[in-house]
Amino acid sequence: MMKRVIVGLLLFALANLALAQSDPLPSWNEDANKKAIEDFVADVTDEASADFVRPEERIATFDNDGTLWAEQPIYVEFQFAIDRIKTLAPQHPDWKTAEPFSLLLAGNMKAFLAGGEKSVVPILTASHSGMTPENFEIIVKDWLATARHPTKKRLYTQLVYQPMLELLAYLRSNGFKTFIVSGGGVEFMRAFAEHSYGVPPEQVIGSEGKMKFEMRDGQPLLLKLPDVQFVDDKAGKPIGIQTNIGRRPIAAFGNSDGDLQMLQWTCAGSGRRFCLYVHHDDAVREWAYDRHSLVGRLDLGLDEASVKHWTVVSMKDDWKTIFPPE
Amino acid sequence: MMKRVIVGLLLFALANLALAQSDPLPSWNEDANKKAIEDFVADVTDEASADFVRPEERIATFDNDGTLWAEQPIYVEFQFAIDRIKTLAPQHPDWKTAEPFSLLLAGNMKAFLAGGEKSVVPILTASHSGMTPENFEIIVKDWLATARHPTKKRLYTQLVYQPMLELLAYLRSNGFKTFIVSGGGVEFMRAFAEHSYGVPPEQVIGSEGKMKFEMRDGQPLLLKLPDVQFVDDKAGKPIGIQTNIGRRPIAAFGNSDGDLQMLQWTCAGSGRRFCLYVHHDDAVREWAYDRHSLVGRLDLGLDEASVKHWTVVSMKDDWKTIFPPE
Repeated sequence: MMKRVIVGLLLFALANLALAQSDPLPSWNEDANKKAIEDFVADVTDEASADFVRPEERIATFDNDGTLWAEQPIYVEFQFAIDRIKTLAPQHPDWKTAEPFSLLLAGNMKAFLAGGEKSVVPILTASHSGMTPENFEIIVKDWLATARHPTKKRLYTQLVYQPMLELLAYLRSNGFKTFIVSGGGVEFMRAFAEHSYGVPPEQVIGSEGKMKFEMRDGQPLLLKLPDVQFVDDKAGKPIGIQTNIGRRPIAAFGNSDGDLQMLQWTCAGSGRRFCLYVHHDDAVREWAYDRHSLVGRLDLGLDEASVKHWTVVSMKDDWKTIFPPE
Repeated sequence: MMKRVIVGLLLFALANLALAQSDPLPSWNEDANKKAIEDFVADVTDEASADFVRPEERIATFDNDGTLWAEQPIYVEFQFAIDRIKTLAPQHPDWKTAEPFSLLLAGNMKAFLAGGEKSVVPILTASHSGMTPENFEIIVKDWLATARHPTKKRLYTQLVYQPMLELLAYLRSNGFKTFIVSGGGVEFMRAFAEHSYGVPPEQVIGSEGKMKFEMRDGQPLLLKLPDVQFVDDKAGKPIGIQTNIGRRPIAAFGNSDGDLQMLQWTCAGSGRRFCLYVHHDDAVREWAYDRHSLVGRLDLGLDEASVKHWTVVSMKDDWKTIFPPE
């Protein structure tokens, strides 16, 4: 009798171990939101299901800032641009007296940020152009290798969301092609997307600068120009998807009003669809912000998610862990 | 003795049969150009080779018109546009008197074509905008299902090059990711690229029109606008590659001066590279044209291919067959 109980307990333990090992989303709590993801994937991958989708059409698009990695207190790419301006300042003595550079270099962040677009655009332009894409990639990688978040004190590439990494891998293991569709600069994101997310450069869609092709000493080169070619945000997201992918996603993941049109576009398609918002409601482990945040505002999207029954993930309640272990 | 000879002959025949069956490029004659392709692929896929390239970086880009399908006497997409204008004419009575539409509708092709860009752009614009991308795809597919080449009398999708279809499949079976990088409209090409070439929409890069996102009766839709967003030709090709793929190809395939910058860009990269021009020199089975052709001119490219030892494929000598069997 005792022996049979022990054997039973052992089998039960082993079964649970196997289950735990085979759970592709271990950082997600066992609740309705996790089940909604699993049900969707089971449904579209089951050939016997009316909702079956052939692998070629299993397109899933992910916003980056606030959806795959942290975006507070300011977008990582903006912090990169600020640091880059400081690095370049000795070569640009004129910046000492020319706004917005002068405000930034004097550490007058309040006046600098108050400038809004008038402050942001020149900083982004000066830090993102005047070099080849290859050189830009090296500059970004070098910065990411050492720059640390002001309060979390970790490398920015360690501030990716562990549950989302699992979700990306889970979708890919089910035949999905995962894309990043983000307002960030496409070449900035490509510098870490393959390593951090397993998303190759050709599956990263973002805002684009103009480029110039020229021959120098018989060698062809590309040069990043200070002009904007395409802004991949808000209504730009479905346009970026159509232009770059040419197929409507069946699943889309975002965290802000900048993703609303992508989610609308995705879930308005025929057949089974899945739209998900990551809701930043964890003031202890990350940050709590939504309707009134300057960075990653989620206001209209929260209302529409409610009306349309999109999945809204609570970082506080749905995620066992936020960031990968140190 | 006789028995041994027969067995030997049988074995020889079987070995040849096996060889023939296993040849992934059966429409290519056994010569130096076929060998150059095979050597390149063997080299970059052999982990023991100094030229090994990991699969993620095995990017191959193909021009479309004149490289994957026929482009004479005029580009297929231009023929589509002309036919579309004729179809739409009853809804546009003003076209009867407005050039270039009037010239086209009156059948005055000489005067129409003499207009050059002034004739081409309004025709392309009127035929490619004012609808959703989904509707445009249907329009193109319907046209391709019935329109026939004026002299070959076959459907345009049957005027793809059999040896190039084999080459695309051969590269993919060796871990390459094949892209189309062509001056043609990206959404025109996507209407047949997956079916005809096995290239999914997200791996088709082409010229782009602007689009608009809007909500109509609560439904999101995209609308194709009559403005050009990007021209994927000449210097635009390396730019399109960098913007859309974010990685320099290790192999590029073209047939005209419009592909020259793509080939320069590809073969200027470090490590093993492969650049190939398809030379239209078969007046009997296809067309013979190069330095003086208005469509698909190959002049500067022919000189540079010679200097840089790029592979120049003779359709006449290298290809056993041009088009797939009827």
